[in-house]
Amino acid sequence: MPNDLHPAWLSCLPAPVPAELTTPAEVAVFELRQAGIDVEVREQPALSREAWSLQGNILHGGHAGVLYGAYELIRAKELNRPVPGGLCKPYYDARMIDCWDNMDGTVERGYAGRSLWFEGNRFSYDPARIRQLGRMLASVGLNVLCINNVNVHQPAQELIDGLLPETAAFAALLRPFGVRLMLSVDFSQPMQHGIPTADPLDPRVQAWWAERAKAIWEQIPDFYGFLVKADSEHRPGPFTYGRSHAEGANMLARAVAPYKGFVVWRAFVYNCQQDWRDHSVDRPCAACDTYLPLDGQFDLNVILQVKNGPYDFQIREPISPTLLALHKTCTAVEFQLAQEYTGHQIDLCALAPVFHEFFEDIHPSGIVAIAAVSNLGRDWNWFGHPFAAANLFCFGRIAWNPREDPVTCIREWARLSYPDAAEALTGILSRSRAVYELYTGTLGQCWMVNPHEHYGPNPGGYEFDRWGTYHRASRDAVGIDRTAAGTGYVSQYPPELQARYGDPGTCPDELLLFFHRLRYDFVMRDGRTLIQRIYDDHFAGAEEAEKMAEVLKALPLPEPDRTEALKRMDLQVANAREWRDVINTFFHRLSGVDDAHGRTIYD
Amino acid sequence: MPNDLHPAWLSCLPAPVPAELTTPAEVAVFELRQAGIDVEVREQPALSREAWSLQGNILHGGHAGVLYGAYELIRAKELNRPVPGGLCKPYYDARMIDCWDNMDGTVERGYAGRSLWFEGNRFSYDPARIRQLGRMLASVGLNVLCINNVNVHQPAQELIDGLLPETAAFAALLRPFGVRLMLSVDFSQPMQHGIPTADPLDPRVQAWWAERAKAIWEQIPDFYGFLVKADSEHRPGPFTYGRSHAEGANMLARAVAPYKGFVVWRAFVYNCQQDWRDHSVDRPCAACDTYLPLDGQFDLNVILQVKNGPYDFQIREPISPTLLALHKTCTAVEFQLAQEYTGHQIDLCALAPVFHEFFEDIHPSGIVAIAAVSNLGRDWNWFGHPFAAANLFCFGRIAWNPREDPVTCIREWARLSYPDAAEALTGILSRSRAVYELYTGTLGQCWMVNPHEHYGPNPGGYEFDRWGTYHRASRDAVGIDRTAAGTGYVSQYPPELQARYGDPGTCPDELLLFFHRLRYDFVMRDGRTLIQRIYDDHFAGAEEAEKMAEVLKALPLPEPDRTEALKRMDLQVANAREWRDVINTFFHRLSGVDDAHGRTIYD
Repeated sequence: MPNDLHPAWLSCLPAPVPAELTTPAEVAVFELRQAGIDVEVREQPALSREAWSLQGNILHGGHAGVLYGAYELIRAKELNRPVPGGLCKPYYDARMIDCWDNMDGTVERGYAGRSLWFEGNRFSYDPARIRQLGRMLASVGLNVLCINNVNVHQPAQELIDGLLPETAAFAALLRPFGVRLMLSVDFSQPMQHGIPTADPLDPRVQAWWAERAKAIWEQIPDFYGFLVKADSEHRPGPFTYGRSHAEGANMLARAVAPYKGFVVWRAFVYNCQQDWRDHSVDRPCAACDTYLPLDGQFDLNVILQVKNGPYDFQIREPISPTLLALHKTCTAVEFQLAQEYTGHQIDLCALAPVFHEFFEDIHPSGIVAIAAVSNLGRDWNWFGHPFAAANLFCFGRIAWNPREDPVTCIREWARLSYPDAAEALTGILSRSRAVYELYTGTLGQCWMVNPHEHYGPNPGGYEFDRWGTYHRASRDAVGIDRTAAGTGYVSQYPPELQARYGDPGTCPDELLLFFHRLRYDFVMRDGRTLIQRIYDDHFAGAEEAEKMAEVLKALPLPEPDRTEALKRMDLQVANAREWRDVINTFFHRLSGVDDAHGRTIYD
Repeated sequence: MPNDLHPAWLSCLPAPVPAELTTPAEVAVFELRQAGIDVEVREQPALSREAWSLQGNILHGGHAGVLYGAYELIRAKELNRPVPGGLCKPYYDARMIDCWDNMDGTVERGYAGRSLWFEGNRFSYDPARIRQLGRMLASVGLNVLCINNVNVHQPAQELIDGLLPETAAFAALLRPFGVRLMLSVDFSQPMQHGIPTADPLDPRVQAWWAERAKAIWEQIPDFYGFLVKADSEHRPGPFTYGRSHAEGANMLARAVAPYKGFVVWRAFVYNCQQDWRDHSVDRPCAACDTYLPLDGQFDLNVILQVKNGPYDFQIREPISPTLLALHKTCTAVEFQLAQEYTGHQIDLCALAPVFHEFFEDIHPSGIVAIAAVSNLGRDWNWFGHPFAAANLFCFGRIAWNPREDPVTCIREWARLSYPDAAEALTGILSRSRAVYELYTGTLGQCWMVNPHEHYGPNPGGYEFDRWGTYHRASRDAVGIDRTAAGTGYVSQYPPELQARYGDPGTCPDELLLFFHRLRYDFVMRDGRTLIQRIYDDHFAGAEEAEKMAEVLKALPLPEPDRTEALKRMDLQVANAREWRDVINTFFHRLSGVDDAHGRTIYD
């Protein structure tokens, strides 16, 4: 491995994978050898592509399965735990990372530096670093990489056209690691080629996409498919032509079907020009309202990709009701590893508990695939914060097996990455999401964040804006009534969740103000008033952040990771204090209620 | 005049000034001839440079005075009014327009398109358009143009160095119109030339600036001087070296003194990293706190340029106490024609009343010069909104004679520009500032605006930020107590103003919440409660904006001006409604008080 590549969790494999290796089996042999593991690798065409099993001294596996098996063997050795018996295979066929990289080198909502592969409106990368990335992905079982932003800005349209040879060359770098390429496409792209419409029912449009699909799969035989953001936040889509999203998605699906390709269609459709005065429109309702009538109309190679919650990657949201409501549509969940609303890869926020909670509310079989927005970038340690690596690691592990325990995943990452500080780091990281939630948006409050930037507190920042994200805090009460008496959002859930969320007496505290509008003197189950609980949570969160900083300072971490982590921890502590004071002051000015314990709340 | 040049208020002079004319006297002869005015132009070296007088059929004047006289004669003819008798001369020697143009072609806080003279990090302009600009400036008596942003971004440093020949060529274009060039300079510029410091007391620094001044005046003999933003909003300055602003400014002043040049030193110094929790720091105090101790220490060719109010170009501010407090310093006032906080040249906001009110609180002799931030740009009509031209016109007239009546100025602009709609336009524009104030920030409230952008309402947008701009609205009260019992800001004023502002019983309504923190049930002089007055003002402002739109629609205006004005008026009406509803809702949520007249205030 070149000296300038941070190993992330792969420090046990110091030698880079040579460029000459072109198959997962070859890579598996190489990796096992450098890990000092003496097993024979035997690719078994009869096994499914990604399955593997260790039988005695022989690692049997499908085409990529041998590599997944190899990494599991290496991990078992490093962690000193047994290798799983029987046939191992991933729960989902598609375990996807969506990168929001623009060809100008920027990364939308990227907090780890510039794009790893784009710069100056062209491909620009170090092949060794891309191979290392492929290895990182494979080592945690991730197998699809979408390399360009769902907001497809020029000239990213060229990736499936004039730049296709370069795209194919890039895909070839990932192929030895079992990682398949996906591309975000612009639904209106045929109009750049002399066709006066992008209407999905127009034969010229259909023919254009069919011809493009043919060209792509000729050059990239293992291409996964297209990712599409349509009719969302000003992106073009079928609505322009009076067509449904099923008609739009199926048109693309039929173009890629001959090659067993997929269309991943994002369900992030809502009115981003809402009038705050209009209480009848409730943004969380939007996806289910749009897609439930289409259930059963999507082709089988369309995957409707739905964010884990109904809003947009807030620190706490209930599960998206769309995923529970669609029974005749292939769906995928989309998480966000990039910490857009969860600390910008400055504040610690290990997201494994978020993945885990999601699967408490939906059976893994309720979806067919799993995706996450990337937190990768060109920074020296790949992730901005060296510990943000844990989010990619844990996502991969849970994507492979949704029943994986989140703390176990975090601990494995910590042991592989920072063995001398693993237990303390596990403790800090396992708690980090809860802490971030306490000092920012406790009780299911969302969007009290600086607009656009999405770091730091701004309780009124979105309150009168067009994004449908309101808390409507007044001198008496706060929160949105989403029960049947309110916006009715709760009725999108199955009966059990309707009952749980619809009653403030049974609704989990963490989601109380998401579902209910409550007076500040509302008495919580623990006997505290709502306003006191708001104060208490914010004081507690900031205090815990300060304690984390103390623990971190004492840990034996290698440089430059230690300096980087401590620098960011200082910023986190400052951020936590700012959140505490701003939110407490905001509610104190509104409610006039003093803290029961006489702590400082500023005027 | 080329067809693509909008005439602004000069439609009576359709022929462009030929490039061959090189002196104001030649231009004067040309302009008078095309206006059909038969007088003889006689330059009188004995007269001061800008004075003029009409004696019988002979226009006597100093070097530029003949041109000012010519334009006054033309205006008198067009407006059918007598020519002033006796010797006419401007009240201030320097009547300056500061352009915040960057060399990349952007204009900071510019709402009229890109820079008229910069693009792609170099000069880029149509000489005919620059001559036309010179003529516009001369026609209203403006005589100094600073062409680059006070925030001096690379490569604008080169304007006094590598690009000096180009700068001189540009200055030559303005010379026939009596307009002198000024440049914003970077206080740290010597450090780009091998000098390890920019300490104003360092002889190497002094020598560097002296050498630069010599080079500039050699190529631009009528160069006016340097404009400097130092130690302000992260700009470099003398504070870095432990030197005072007098030491910093005097160093530059001594470099330019041999050429009778000036240093215009901006007094916009405040803590832009304030902690909102700290009530002891009050941003409006900053300039006086900084400069009063230096009064008497500035060289005579230093002009301390102070914004008209203590904040930053809000729709209503009290006069800057700094201008009233410094008696041994040459000071200038700085207005802003660019409508940064006053409607972005979309909403109508004729600023002549602001200039007029300023001179009600200070005798014109209390300052030595007058400046305004430009509202010009490359848009087809120069100003974005065709009526925004009135602000440059009226500023010029009032800069020439501070006692000029603001409505008279507006009427003259309207009669010259849109003779068929002049009276109605005069009515609308004369009222426009008051209307904008009503629907945005009535009663001296400031900063309830969208951060950064500064258009549209956001009552909490700056409340917890670092800019020192807080209203601290709570469930009971709003405003900042700036009396002796509060921040003490009012004590910076002379006794009469201290008494007037310091007592809510005598403080003008328009400034009430600037100086006082008051409960919502405070009873105003007109018998209404404060909260009802807030509601009433916002309803009234939005209603008046709607009525303006009706009047405007019926006016006979030429195209494309009419379409442009109506398009912007629609945006203004929408903006006014948004302000009305957001501000009323904000205070209703806080106070819980309903509107006495039952009008709609949204939840």
